[in-house]
Amino acid sequence: MITNDTKRLGAQAFARLNALNAYSDHPDHLERLYLSAAHRKAVDAVALMMREAGFDAVHIDALGTVVGRYEGQSVGRPALLIGSHIDTVKDAGSFDGMLGVIAGIGVVEALHEAGERLDFAIEVLAFGDEENVRFPSNLSSSRAIAGSFDYTTLDGRDENGISLREALIAFGGNPDAIAGIARKKEDVIGYVEMHIEQGPVLDQENRPVGIVTAISGASRRRIIVTGEAGHAGTVPMALRKDALIAASEMALAIEKLGAKAENGVATIGQMQVEPGAVNVIPGRVRFTVDARAPKDAVRQQLVADIEAALRSIAARRHVTVDIQPFYDAPAAPASEAIMQGLAAAIEARQMEARYLPSGAGHDAMVMGALCPMGMLFVRCKDGISHNPAESMTEEDAGLAIAILLDFVRHYRA
Amino acid sequence: MITNDTKRLGAQAFARLNALNAYSDHPDHLERLYLSAAHRKAVDAVALMMREAGFDAVHIDALGTVVGRYEGQSVGRPALLIGSHIDTVKDAGSFDGMLGVIAGIGVVEALHEAGERLDFAIEVLAFGDEENVRFPSNLSSSRAIAGSFDYTTLDGRDENGISLREALIAFGGNPDAIAGIARKKEDVIGYVEMHIEQGPVLDQENRPVGIVTAISGASRRRIIVTGEAGHAGTVPMALRKDALIAASEMALAIEKLGAKAENGVATIGQMQVEPGAVNVIPGRVRFTVDARAPKDAVRQQLVADIEAALRSIAARRHVTVDIQPFYDAPAAPASEAIMQGLAAAIEARQMEARYLPSGAGHDAMVMGALCPMGMLFVRCKDGISHNPAESMTEEDAGLAIAILLDFVRHYRA
Repeated sequence: MITNDTKRLGAQAFARLNALNAYSDHPDHLERLYLSAAHRKAVDAVALMMREAGFDAVHIDALGTVVGRYEGQSVGRPALLIGSHIDTVKDAGSFDGMLGVIAGIGVVEALHEAGERLDFAIEVLAFGDEENVRFPSNLSSSRAIAGSFDYTTLDGRDENGISLREALIAFGGNPDAIAGIARKKEDVIGYVEMHIEQGPVLDQENRPVGIVTAISGASRRRIIVTGEAGHAGTVPMALRKDALIAASEMALAIEKLGAKAENGVATIGQMQVEPGAVNVIPGRVRFTVDARAPKDAVRQQLVADIEAALRSIAARRHVTVDIQPFYDAPAAPASEAIMQGLAAAIEARQMEARYLPSGAGHDAMVMGALCPMGMLFVRCKDGISHNPAESMTEEDAGLAIAILLDFVRHYRA
Repeated sequence: MITNDTKRLGAQAFARLNALNAYSDHPDHLERLYLSAAHRKAVDAVALMMREAGFDAVHIDALGTVVGRYEGQSVGRPALLIGSHIDTVKDAGSFDGMLGVIAGIGVVEALHEAGERLDFAIEVLAFGDEENVRFPSNLSSSRAIAGSFDYTTLDGRDENGISLREALIAFGGNPDAIAGIARKKEDVIGYVEMHIEQGPVLDQENRPVGIVTAISGASRRRIIVTGEAGHAGTVPMALRKDALIAASEMALAIEKLGAKAENGVATIGQMQVEPGAVNVIPGRVRFTVDARAPKDAVRQQLVADIEAALRSIAARRHVTVDIQPFYDAPAAPASEAIMQGLAAAIEARQMEARYLPSGAGHDAMVMGALCPMGMLFVRCKDGISHNPAESMTEEDAGLAIAILLDFVRHYRA
């Protein structure tokens, strides 16, 4: 439901999002990697936005996260955290991450303008290391706050040989103060993150927002199918052990199993064919499988079903299959209380609450270990992200911030 | 049927084949590319073998083919040609090509030892440019004799920048005398080539020899399937346009159509997946199709069926498919008279004549335009060729040469 209020919230948010677009390390497109010069400027810009919006205190923590605090009815109460990230991929869009930070600022600004103080404090967090592009250190800035920072990542290096530790010091951060960032459980009452969906579901169903039920867990496997190379002209079809045809049958089985699993997906992203000549029957095919589901039991069953299907196809086609696990991450379920609060705020605007899993990772995944976690997805055009074509409407942004504001006003820890 | 005669023929052939193994351009494996130093030495060795075996005249033609002539009952009669090639691939086996040349020498040696002169002359040809490894000039040495030499190939260069013309002059050949090599149709009464099968059919059926019905024609297509790349976590299975899953379904359809076509084969030898990241749904897949059949009508129908299947799968999966032809060669049928003659010689030894197509190309493909052509396939272990593991038995070689000798003795133009 678009109102004058949501229009105003959308316009303010888009003005801030546009302002952040100026901070790029690349002259021709948006690129703001963790601890880069553009990231440093964006951090200062976000801190200034927070001060102007009426936050009581703003600081930049030891890992470069901007932390703005808006006190509750008395100073020092436990805080509801609202966060997302301001680092980007290379050649990025304007909304992935930034929307959630700007939304938090918009919520606090609205409370401040109305002179409202809640039972709890609000802290807005602008994380810096979500996209996992520059260093081999995924989600380090939110991990530090959640108390799960991995200190070995400080020695990881970017493609220019600069370590995370060196970059952090040059940025103005402090590798020796990371332990002090970690929040105590009694000081936080929840974490909520607004983010573009990065998928097509809401856009296809013509819904502005959706409630995330869980961030899906993921399992990855490397598959090697070995058959028998041969002359494409001289080996009759019935006598072949064609590794690519076997892999093709496996691909279709994986698609079918992915579609059958509850909210599951299964993807073959890479495939290499050997020897790879026009007139030679493939003797070996290597491919990857990425299987995800919001429920761990569903994902584990999906992986087991895929492995069984691969072995069965291999046996029938007289090829061998080698299955190597190389990544397994559990799902992060959203808090029932936060989902219910978001649903109430959505339904109060005469809209239906649409629940969906997040197949992509987010800072919320890590924050869920510290406190109740929830996410509000906002539709983006055609589900496109990580791309300059990433797009969403000002109306949707305003509506989503109004919902978040409503949620915050009614939230009870 | 192994006899003392076939044993002797096999032993002589294997002694000659072993002798030829010495001529390699590589110290560790057999490699004898067209017009190389090793090829030059092999040419001289084959010429000497011919002289010692009782040929009446031996010469090396302008393109490096060794030509040995054994006159008939009078000098200058039309000739039955027996040939194959002595160039090899890199890291080659000992039999591909060489067997057919050595068989021809064995046949003439037997006739000469028995003091037999036939109604026609016999010429044994050791071609030099069959494997198409060094220059972009496929079958140039047999094409010259068949009158279909392509003069533009003289300017084609090897990987060191040496042109075929330059290499030919250095070898001792003569690019200006190529036209003179071409035979008149009235001077030849047939061309017969013995060759290892390079496929598994005879070995699987436990037969020493088979009669080639035709050298299959081949059609090749480049296929580009374009779907929509996307996040492997966020795009539900039902909303995907996965180019690799579409290509996998196409691969299975191609396999099925290849198996259905009479003596047909269809192979996907190359496949590339883009963008090729573990967590990205493939947006584009490129692959090649190689379809062959001994009957042109069957091959053309096979290609049409494959193209229709690809378009239908693409439409159903909401991806696009682009099909680019890049090679089409017609089949070369074997002569009925030669097939019947070979069958009689096989049946005379209490064996069943097994007819099969040749899916691989041979010099016979080109020679068929000059005169009646036929081929006798000899089994090789597991169908392996173009590999040091290429293997056949001395018994089979002796038996096959005895059959060829019998065929020659009874051949009528």
